[in-house]
Amino acid sequence: MKLNIAVLPGDGIGPEVTAQAVKVLKAIAMEFNHVFTFKTAIVGASAIEKTGVPLPEETISTCDKADAILFGAIGNPKYDDPSVDVRPEQGLLGLRKTFDLHTNIRPVIAYEDLLNKSSLKVKQIKGTNILIYRELTSGIYFGDKHYSDTEASDVCKYTRKEIERIAHQAFKAAQGRKKKLTLVDKANVLASSRLWRKVVKEIATEYPDVTLECRYIDNVAMALIINPRQFDVILTENMFGDILSEEASVIVGSIGLLASASIGDNHVMFEPIHGAYTKATNKGIANPIASILSAAMLLDHFGLYDEASLVREGVDKALKLHITTPDLNTKYDNISTTKVGDFIEDFIHNPD
Amino acid sequence: MKLNIAVLPGDGIGPEVTAQAVKVLKAIAMEFNHVFTFKTAIVGASAIEKTGVPLPEETISTCDKADAILFGAIGNPKYDDPSVDVRPEQGLLGLRKTFDLHTNIRPVIAYEDLLNKSSLKVKQIKGTNILIYRELTSGIYFGDKHYSDTEASDVCKYTRKEIERIAHQAFKAAQGRKKKLTLVDKANVLASSRLWRKVVKEIATEYPDVTLECRYIDNVAMALIINPRQFDVILTENMFGDILSEEASVIVGSIGLLASASIGDNHVMFEPIHGAYTKATNKGIANPIASILSAAMLLDHFGLYDEASLVREGVDKALKLHITTPDLNTKYDNISTTKVGDFIEDFIHNPD
Ligand SMILES: [Mg+2]
Ligand SMILES: [Mg+2]
Repeated sequence: MKLNIAVLPGDGIGPEVTAQAVKVLKAIAMEFNHVFTFKTAIVGASAIEKTGVPLPEETISTCDKADAILFGAIGNPKYDDPSVDVRPEQGLLGLRKTFDLHTNIRPVIAYEDLLNKSSLKVKQIKGTNILIYRELTSGIYFGDKHYSDTEASDVCKYTRKEIERIAHQAFKAAQGRKKKLTLVDKANVLASSRLWRKVVKEIATEYPDVTLECRYIDNVAMALIINPRQFDVILTENMFGDILSEEASVIVGSIGLLASASIGDNHVMFEPIHGAYTKATNKGIANPIASILSAAMLLDHFGLYDEASLVREGVDKALKLHITTPDLNTKYDNISTTKVGDFIEDFIHNPD
Repeated sequence: MKLNIAVLPGDGIGPEVTAQAVKVLKAIAMEFNHVFTFKTAIVGASAIEKTGVPLPEETISTCDKADAILFGAIGNPKYDDPSVDVRPEQGLLGLRKTFDLHTNIRPVIAYEDLLNKSSLKVKQIKGTNILIYRELTSGIYFGDKHYSDTEASDVCKYTRKEIERIAHQAFKAAQGRKKKLTLVDKANVLASSRLWRKVVKEIATEYPDVTLECRYIDNVAMALIINPRQFDVILTENMFGDILSEEASVIVGSIGLLASASIGDNHVMFEPIHGAYTKATNKGIANPIASILSAAMLLDHFGLYDEASLVREGVDKALKLHITTPDLNTKYDNISTTKVGDFIEDFIHNPD
């Protein structure tokens, strides 16, 4: 397969972790006879420094022409002052909006070799494997806003079409898994949630092999901690997905392991959940696994399942043998970002 | 002190747990020479059955005349069909709205004797003592709603006044505790959150002894599980408070221990967090501790601190000696709701 991949390393630890993901994708291309071409573009604080804007036209054009975008991380504390008009984060929101990346997918997996890293008891999380489908380009984050010194408001609006497109993807994903879909809403209080529930229940009739359950966000925020294994695919709107997916990172034990895919009708982007972590830049301590697992999601997206599996086997092996950066490592304290990438690259060339 | 208390037992296990709280309050009145009078009124499904409405005028009148309302629980699965117009829950929302009970307070305490009941590791939660201040009568739950078959929306609106009144209470509470207040919002995205942050930062200048931190809901949903001890008083809007307080119940280990107070300018109501749990009705297995701890919050509210402390000591002793209902008990399987109430009543009469 030929794939043109736009690589947007971004800021902070973004470049060093993305370099490992690219290394892994190159190894996969070699072993499986694919032709992956990579074109790098700037975004975030590094783009502001060079061009004055966080998402330059040239970057948009590179991404537009690519089959997939591999994104690192953006952000820099020097832009934290809320009075600053141009901020690195606008680069990420701009990408999501420009390419209408409406469906965000986040796997939450309790890795066997990391169970004791979690705040939760091992018996509680062992075997957890959840796929969160979060709507990414609508809801209260994008609705009309009103602000004055005496009152302020936000509108959470959803259209049927916005719900349908992500719901179909979530049902299809559930069909390939444990065939259970949990819609998370607040339908006892919110009109927008009632529409979600209505549309998702209608769509459910097209997927009779998938069991649908509809639950309230407050209840799921609790249930996710008490018994995460009960969930298979979680489908939810933008803000609830933001809250639940960050909460769910406690199951995995480290945010340095969380990958994500953002899917639009014509474009796809893959990125680790973690941020730019500026303080750790170029120290070799940044965990590249979230970025490498994002590359595995890219492979999956194009139907390269064996290739994706091999990458994940490499990650599992790295975790098992303690070939991990210091955030995870209880055995060695000198395994660098590059070393983890090299190990997984070697594994792909010599899996046995 | 003379106190007129309106007792609204409600549905399901409401009456049996509330009876234990009343028993405890009577014991306190006797030992401390107070005059507590109790007037019972109906609400919820039981009110619908007798009068056709979930919150009869007579109940409103009884509550209006009382110094405090002691509420049990409401709900009955037979009203779960969303097409039903009259529902028990309307009784509770009606009480909150009628008496403008804008400030909901929920303590989250990791009881020493119950640490191993939690899904979280003991070392993670030991010593946790958080007070959640949740705005209860505004925000997206009460904003304008629009619903059609093709789109739906909800408005989250806050006024300066709505934020100020609860913020002052939360700062005052922090002054009597560890002097730390965490405002939870989503100010990087929501206009209403920006107003919360602005108003709360202004008010903070009146409480220079309290340290204010402002954090995002998604981050706190994670941090509450990873390191709950970092929090003292949490202040937040309606929906975030709903989500966080239910999530926080995992720290306590059982929802049967969670009490709450709902404070308005002229009225106050105290209630356990748990619902009517219809299936457990009259089996003697309902945990009365949340209701008894709600009674302790009532005593605190009227400045009866020694009295409230004695009730809590009684609860601690019951937990220590395993005088608890089956949901908590790993030692005895035959301790009933009434037995727990009797034990705490006896303790109040004979604390040594
Ligand atoms: Mg987030
Ligand atoms: Mg709730």
